[in-house]
Amino acid sequence: MTSPTSSLPPAQVGIIGFGAFGRLMARHLSPHVALLAHDPRLPPGDAQEDGARPVTLAEAAACPVVVLAVPVRALAATVEAIRPHLRPGALVADVGSVKCIPAAILRDGLPDHVEILGTHPLFGPQSARNGIAGLRIALCPIRGRQWLRHAAFLRRGLGLRVMVATPEEHDREAALAQGLTHLIAKVLVRMEPMPGRMTTRSFELIQEAVGMVRDDAPEVFQAIEHSNPFAALVRRRFFGLAAELDQELEAGHPGPAPLALASG
Amino acid sequence: MTSPTSSLPPAQVGIIGFGAFGRLMARHLSPHVALLAHDPRLPPGDAQEDGARPVTLAEAAACPVVVLAVPVRALAATVEAIRPHLRPGALVADVGSVKCIPAAILRDGLPDHVEILGTHPLFGPQSARNGIAGLRIALCPIRGRQWLRHAAFLRRGLGLRVMVATPEEHDREAALAQGLTHLIAKVLVRMEPMPGRMTTRSFELIQEAVGMVRDDAPEVFQAIEHSNPFAALVRRRFFGLAAELDQELEAGHPGPAPLALASG
Repeated sequence: MTSPTSSLPPAQVGIIGFGAFGRLMARHLSPHVALLAHDPRLPPGDAQEDGARPVTLAEAAACPVVVLAVPVRALAATVEAIRPHLRPGALVADVGSVKCIPAAILRDGLPDHVEILGTHPLFGPQSARNGIAGLRIALCPIRGRQWLRHAAFLRRGLGLRVMVATPEEHDREAALAQGLTHLIAKVLVRMEPMPGRMTTRSFELIQEAVGMVRDDAPEVFQAIEHSNPFAALVRRRFFGLAAELDQELEAGHPGPAPLALASG
Repeated sequence: MTSPTSSLPPAQVGIIGFGAFGRLMARHLSPHVALLAHDPRLPPGDAQEDGARPVTLAEAAACPVVVLAVPVRALAATVEAIRPHLRPGALVADVGSVKCIPAAILRDGLPDHVEILGTHPLFGPQSARNGIAGLRIALCPIRGRQWLRHAAFLRRGLGLRVMVATPEEHDREAALAQGLTHLIAKVLVRMEPMPGRMTTRSFELIQEAVGMVRDDAPEVFQAIEHSNPFAALVRRRFFGLAAELDQELEAGHPGPAPLALASG
């Protein structure tokens, strides 16, 4: 479907929003493409920041590819702000952890002369610590066909596993995968300190998973729990099944545990 | 504290109870020591089973080291049964997932002329699939000093990480580590099928942890939840904090999710 040369990266990418994820992305893209980054907290200048040159909003938004690395709740305002600066034929992509709501915002707010791609890199600063090859990215094509070329670059140039889905397919699966991971992590962090000696391999894996998401920006948890239309359903099922198990265990409990025995 | 030769394994070990864990143990001990195994479901004979020779209860219980690999709820009856066959100076060990209750049963039920060691190998058939070197075993010395020699063998001969603790120290930590792992796994298994495409590394680690315990014998979950004096407290905290988080999320939810937007 794509020729070898079509997997070349675009000439210039503008990143709007240069927080933890924008910077992670810049570090991996900068060996392949010229990067311009805009963030209100980052004054335009010549000094590179994580491989990107800080520029004005207008400059970043005028690139052939514009990536919106802003929290989901800031997406509508960002779309409004970049709108006048977008060039015809450009591709605009977001990187949010949910896809239904961003897809609607981008479709409704962007001019017809730009193409649109929803993306969700299924990793963050922690899980990407040892590189991103082999990690996953979800792509939700919304408008246009040039995303195919970028998908080829993500696959061959960065070694990512590309998962193509509709926004709804994405959000249904992510509500389970990410929703459950973050719910469990939140509860376990509140239960700390955790034991360090009598640990099993399975417990260590769960602790490792908690470690990967515990320092995620609060916006990530917000987006996953409040902006994914399926998150509340998953939560209901998880808490419902947990309560069910709790009742079963209480019912099956053979009376008070004979603690006294242990001191005999 | 121990001389090099003192880490030699004992001449003969009798295993009482030859289920999944007894067999796993036999496969790892048989290159080092002669093993006799007794299980009501295993007729005595000459053919080796997982490196052990099936024998009568009397023969297995007359070994210098006797390991009781039976469910915690069968421990008291097993102690009663082996009692007449034990030799003075023998070491009797159990391998249960909890330690306070077994310690009391062994201390109360065994004759004064045997030594006693509580053990909890912090692994099972799944987590030991790629070998046991580097995995953990908890030792709770109850009576006598020869356990030091066996600890040295477990460390040097089998490569295990040996954690020495009192039964109470063990049960407090295991209630968190094992209790939480099994609780989470039970709930997640009930939520299946799980997504296979939009998965993050952290979700995959949790799924891997679930895979390690999902096929554990029901007795393991029973022991962890019902025979650990601290398990109910951990459960109360987990379910309490989960309910608290649930309420916070519901309170913070910005109205019904705008699903309609997604189809626009």
